[in-house]
Amino acid sequence: MTKPPLRIALIGSGFMGRAHAMAFAAAARTFDLPVEPVLEVLADRDEETAAKAAASLGFARSTGDWRAAVNDPAIGLVAITTPNILHAPIALAAIAAGKPVYCEKPLAATLAEAEAMTLAAEAARLPTAVGFTYLYNPMIGLAREIIADGEIGEVTAFRGIHAEDFMASPDAPFNWRCEAAQAGGALADIGSHIIALARHLVGEVRAVSGQLHTAHPVRRDASGAPREVPIDDQADALVRFENGARGTLSASWIATGRKMGLGFEVSGTRGSIVFTQERFNELQLYRGGTRGREGFTTIMAGLEHGDYGAFCPASGHQIGYNDLKTIEAKAAIEAALGLPNAAKDFREALNVERVAESIRTSSREGRWVEV
Amino acid sequence: MTKPPLRIALIGSGFMGRAHAMAFAAAARTFDLPVEPVLEVLADRDEETAAKAAASLGFARSTGDWRAAVNDPAIGLVAITTPNILHAPIALAAIAAGKPVYCEKPLAATLAEAEAMTLAAEAARLPTAVGFTYLYNPMIGLAREIIADGEIGEVTAFRGIHAEDFMASPDAPFNWRCEAAQAGGALADIGSHIIALARHLVGEVRAVSGQLHTAHPVRRDASGAPREVPIDDQADALVRFENGARGTLSASWIATGRKMGLGFEVSGTRGSIVFTQERFNELQLYRGGTRGREGFTTIMAGLEHGDYGAFCPASGHQIGYNDLKTIEAKAAIEAALGLPNAAKDFREALNVERVAESIRTSSREGRWVEV
Amino acid sequence: MTKPPLRIALIGSGFMGRAHAMAFAAAARTFDLPVEPVLEVLADRDEETAAKAAASLGFARSTGDWRAAVNDPAIGLVAITTPNILHAPIALAAIAAGKPVYCEKPLAATLAEAEAMTLAAEAARLPTAVGFTYLYNPMIGLAREIIADGEIGEVTAFRGIHAEDFMASPDAPFNWRCEAAQAGGALADIGSHIIALARHLVGEVRAVSGQLHTAHPVRRDASGAPREVPIDDQADALVRFENGARGTLSASWIATGRKMGLGFEVSGTRGSIVFTQERFNELQLYRGGTRGREGFTTIMAGLEHGDYGAFCPASGHQIGYNDLKTIEAKAAIEAALGLPNAAKDFREALNVERVAESIRTSSREGRWVEV
Amino acid sequence: MTKPPLRIALIGSGFMGRAHAMAFAAAARTFDLPVEPVLEVLADRDEETAAKAAASLGFARSTGDWRAAVNDPAIGLVAITTPNILHAPIALAAIAAGKPVYCEKPLAATLAEAEAMTLAAEAARLPTAVGFTYLYNPMIGLAREIIADGEIGEVTAFRGIHAEDFMASPDAPFNWRCEAAQAGGALADIGSHIIALARHLVGEVRAVSGQLHTAHPVRRDASGAPREVPIDDQADALVRFENGARGTLSASWIATGRKMGLGFEVSGTRGSIVFTQERFNELQLYRGGTRGREGFTTIMAGLEHGDYGAFCPASGHQIGYNDLKTIEAKAAIEAALGLPNAAKDFREALNVERVAESIRTSSREGRWVEV
Repeated sequence: MTKPPLRIALIGSGFMGRAHAMAFAAAARTFDLPVEPVLEVLADRDEETAAKAAASLGFARSTGDWRAAVNDPAIGLVAITTPNILHAPIALAAIAAGKPVYCEKPLAATLAEAEAMTLAAEAARLPTAVGFTYLYNPMIGLAREIIADGEIGEVTAFRGIHAEDFMASPDAPFNWRCEAAQAGGALADIGSHIIALARHLVGEVRAVSGQLHTAHPVRRDASGAPREVPIDDQADALVRFENGARGTLSASWIATGRKMGLGFEVSGTRGSIVFTQERFNELQLYRGGTRGREGFTTIMAGLEHGDYGAFCPASGHQIGYNDLKTIEAKAAIEAALGLPNAAKDFREALNVERVAESIRTSSREGRWVEV
Repeated sequence: MTKPPLRIALIGSGFMGRAHAMAFAAAARTFDLPVEPVLEVLADRDEETAAKAAASLGFARSTGDWRAAVNDPAIGLVAITTPNILHAPIALAAIAAGKPVYCEKPLAATLAEAEAMTLAAEAARLPTAVGFTYLYNPMIGLAREIIADGEIGEVTAFRGIHAEDFMASPDAPFNWRCEAAQAGGALADIGSHIIALARHLVGEVRAVSGQLHTAHPVRRDASGAPREVPIDDQADALVRFENGARGTLSASWIATGRKMGLGFEVSGTRGSIVFTQERFNELQLYRGGTRGREGFTTIMAGLEHGDYGAFCPASGHQIGYNDLKTIEAKAAIEAALGLPNAAKDFREALNVERVAESIRTSSREGRWVEV
Repeated sequence: MTKPPLRIALIGSGFMGRAHAMAFAAAARTFDLPVEPVLEVLADRDEETAAKAAASLGFARSTGDWRAAVNDPAIGLVAITTPNILHAPIALAAIAAGKPVYCEKPLAATLAEAEAMTLAAEAARLPTAVGFTYLYNPMIGLAREIIADGEIGEVTAFRGIHAEDFMASPDAPFNWRCEAAQAGGALADIGSHIIALARHLVGEVRAVSGQLHTAHPVRRDASGAPREVPIDDQADALVRFENGARGTLSASWIATGRKMGLGFEVSGTRGSIVFTQERFNELQLYRGGTRGREGFTTIMAGLEHGDYGAFCPASGHQIGYNDLKTIEAKAAIEAALGLPNAAKDFREALNVERVAESIRTSSREGRWVEV
Repeated sequence: MTKPPLRIALIGSGFMGRAHAMAFAAAARTFDLPVEPVLEVLADRDEETAAKAAASLGFARSTGDWRAAVNDPAIGLVAITTPNILHAPIALAAIAAGKPVYCEKPLAATLAEAEAMTLAAEAARLPTAVGFTYLYNPMIGLAREIIADGEIGEVTAFRGIHAEDFMASPDAPFNWRCEAAQAGGALADIGSHIIALARHLVGEVRAVSGQLHTAHPVRRDASGAPREVPIDDQADALVRFENGARGTLSASWIATGRKMGLGFEVSGTRGSIVFTQERFNELQLYRGGTRGREGFTTIMAGLEHGDYGAFCPASGHQIGYNDLKTIEAKAAIEAALGLPNAAKDFREALNVERVAESIRTSSREGRWVEV
């Protein structure tokens, strides 16, 4: 009954690194995986940081040299949770070493890097996975199934937004998220989630008209010095999907009061779905029905919905953010093993970034852009 | 204690005509007006229809000739609730006769007509009012006050929509709302409400990028014959406001499940407001506050809010659609009397239509358009 | 086409008097009644008050002597909106004069009076109506229909409350609502609504165990003098219905934050209904359904629901408190004319008060009481 | 940096056993505990079941003899997740062996057993913890803090319910939950949660008047044979708290449509709190405030709230049911170590059961019962 190990190298040990470590452990106990995920080596910027994190997170070994970890023959999966600018070099090295890669979003700091990573992985026929955590929600799975099965008819519109407020105050400091070279800006940082969701549910985006906006064009950095902000605080776009549906996509980190305002309404010829991540164990479904009894039905996450039952003994108990991460880790493991899986790969992450880049281009040039 | 009469001519006796008649009567009982509104004459397409409607709605006289009603020297206010194509000729005649005019929205079937009506009224220095019913909601008044007073800081975004579903089915028949010459289409028919609301709360719209879409390009008319649909089922637009705020405006009459989905979220640097007409006695307000106690507060319409107390003995009782119409009728009467009033006039209706027209132009030409 | 008049005498001209006057007028315009309700005479405590109110509310005549109004041969319906202690003498005089009576709730200041009024009306075979406004809501009608049709199976539980907060502060002054002789107390004043609702939906209450509580046993009156409060600030009761269902009924006027918290959840073997008057154009219905798609459906008031369509052109527009009053006035008029009607009569009001009285007895004696 | 181990024996490996195992592991990674919890030995009804579960859950050893596990000198904490009837013998044995005990709720199958367990633990001065999972929710912690700090004034009422629907159908089979000897019935099984919550927030319950009800008095067991149901499907009670507050407590497992309907409204002289476990990352708070801006504020779980930040990087991400269990496991560990902790101990569980027993007695005897 002993399962073969899948030894994991984790590069990066910030909050997201810890989330990965816990998700691997939880996935092993939650799901009946064909392997035992082993937290083998943790790499961070120096030996000491890595050693400390390894002890705290339960890794067997640690290193200050990510190249060593990536090239370690024992390793079966490389997980990357570093700052965005390091995603490309680490992923490319891992691919060169023949390792499956599980990378946090955004895939890279630039579109060119994302493209290089995708092509390298595909050329090497290596499986990849990207941390679009919210897509692994069983209720999003339910939404996708409802749409795919035609329960709401043909999709005519998708209107979505990812709104948070951590930069709403003009006094919020200039930080790495404000740097263009770090894949900064509301559209890149959080807008990628709503783009990914739109693609996941409705399909390819064909064209966009975008409007980016820097509401607070100067912010002070940690030293108190004023810095020009080169990226967007909010972005809105009109979209046309390949299948004819239309809609809007918005991203904002200055939407005062919104903490996790990732939401959408998708309308079809026979029904509609409404969702917000702020109540992610619910889905609102409208499908007509008996005259005088129609309305939006609040479906509560339950045993009938995807992986929910792996976490909770009965409907209504609710899963949390880390459980979404656990489902994501399972998908990454299954991908690494070449099994059927629900992971979003580098290609999909690249497609998402292409939509974002098209929105940026459209905004800059004041015209519609084909993706 | 007898008040002087304000004799009203109502042209049109459909549902909206009845709503006007009831609103005038209710306004007289609800508010302490300086005049007694008198339902003097009702005009409709023929004598018989008019006579029947007059009896049912409580008008003293009736006529099949609207020109007679409009030119009647006793009349102090002309209310127009006819089909859209008749708005311009009736209003122009009323203005020529020196009468204040209270007209249903949209102001006219074409922008040119709306312009002519506005200029005529202004040249004649005659007061006018337009039926943007939802703007008279005390909770919208509260939103406006909160924004104007700077309670949510500087406005950074307004994202709004008016979504209904009465044309969602491909089987919904071709009717007058599908005719371009009748000011048809989702944007003109219901989109005008969200444009008016955006202007009411945030101010002038400077530029737009629009996308109109006819999801069901062929519908059958009453005779069963297929007809090409020349107008939009849904419209979305990016907008830039004069004051720097950005956002989106959408309109759809194919948003399955939505019956009165007129809603918005307006974000400011210090707070936010969320509203939906489907619960129009409520307003959601976020304003920060004590650490760990922040959140959106659901304010329920009450005695502190505008004209609410004229209708209900205590908070929480709720006003209805016809009460909004009653507040609107009061505004129209006050306007007609030359008193300070909250009525939206022809000029404002024209401004709303200009934004709609700019969205249409933008969509047709695939470019941003300055309003 | 002229309809025969139904001449109305209104006794009392406070807020509720005005509501009646407006409701009669609105009912005439909203519904196709077989008579024309005429606001004939308004009676109040003195000639001057009455004359002023008559002018403001549109009554033809006025009087300071309610006996004159009640005995006026022209009068076809007597409406009573006076303080509670006057209900009995006026109603009994009206009945003696052979008039149908439409009385505000509570029916009387004491159970004995309510009984006398009911027996008098029944002996005289005169129709009566009582102002249980919330029962006339089309969505309550829908709930009743759903239950009666067995859509939620057999009812197993009804848990309801009427919660408001106008007496929540210890500083809220002692007023007539605090007097036992005036039918004061939370249970009598607002609890009657939830009792009436429970009976309307589930049927006869057989037994109760009650607990009344005076949270603020001393309040200051208008003069600043401390007064002992002889009535309840809140009341809770266990109930057994005739049909076997169980539940709880609560009333509170110290439920801080609640403005119109009249709500309930009724559970059946196959479904459930949830309602709150704070969103009275909605009803939540659970009926099972497709696996993985079950949930509470928010039904929005629309054209399919009772009298809604008489007020609004389309679903989702929402009716208001005064529209409920208008439906109630229609029922009172239909009752007065001997037509089929939905009015709650004196007998039903007496039944409601008997339940309330049983709860008071139970609380006083610390035991279950059969109603 | 190596932490001393705390070796855990888990007795029982059903769903709740797995939840404990995962919670111990997660607690170690989530919190900076002074010990390393070690999944040392898993005991179940036979060697094979135990071995299989141990492998799957990550325990080092397994046994078919719980006495061996309980008496194992290496063990520092005994966790009990067996059927209810085994709680007492195992706990008493563990206490006899000098071990801290962490037991699932209900504490025991009978009140006498619960009393014996409590007295034994107290006599041995051994720390204990009980699985009242919902009390460990940071938002419940917030509610408690708000109440304790007087933010809502003096508490006047608490009305709460735990409603689910897993036995709503008359066809739901007779199972162990229907046996009185197994601590069966809605009140014992789920009502204990709302009693615990009421005590946690408002304090001691002094007296109760209860009404138990078996809506489906006969159910078929697994073999299809009809069985009389000796326990309650729903229970309602009036309560008086020691501090003068009043209210109602209800429990139902036949509340069709409710999956996790554990909710309450607590009213104070200056504010109110509303909560439902179906949206347990939220709390509704009313505290008055600026005139015209008052309302219930929806507070979303965030970094300011208790242990939330140990699980999520930012507000709005939401924790899940298993995270509550992890916080509970931490409390149990801290209790076992003699550290300050938030664990509910046997004494508190006994107090909860006494309230439940008083409600049962009251219902049986038809009178108020002092707790």
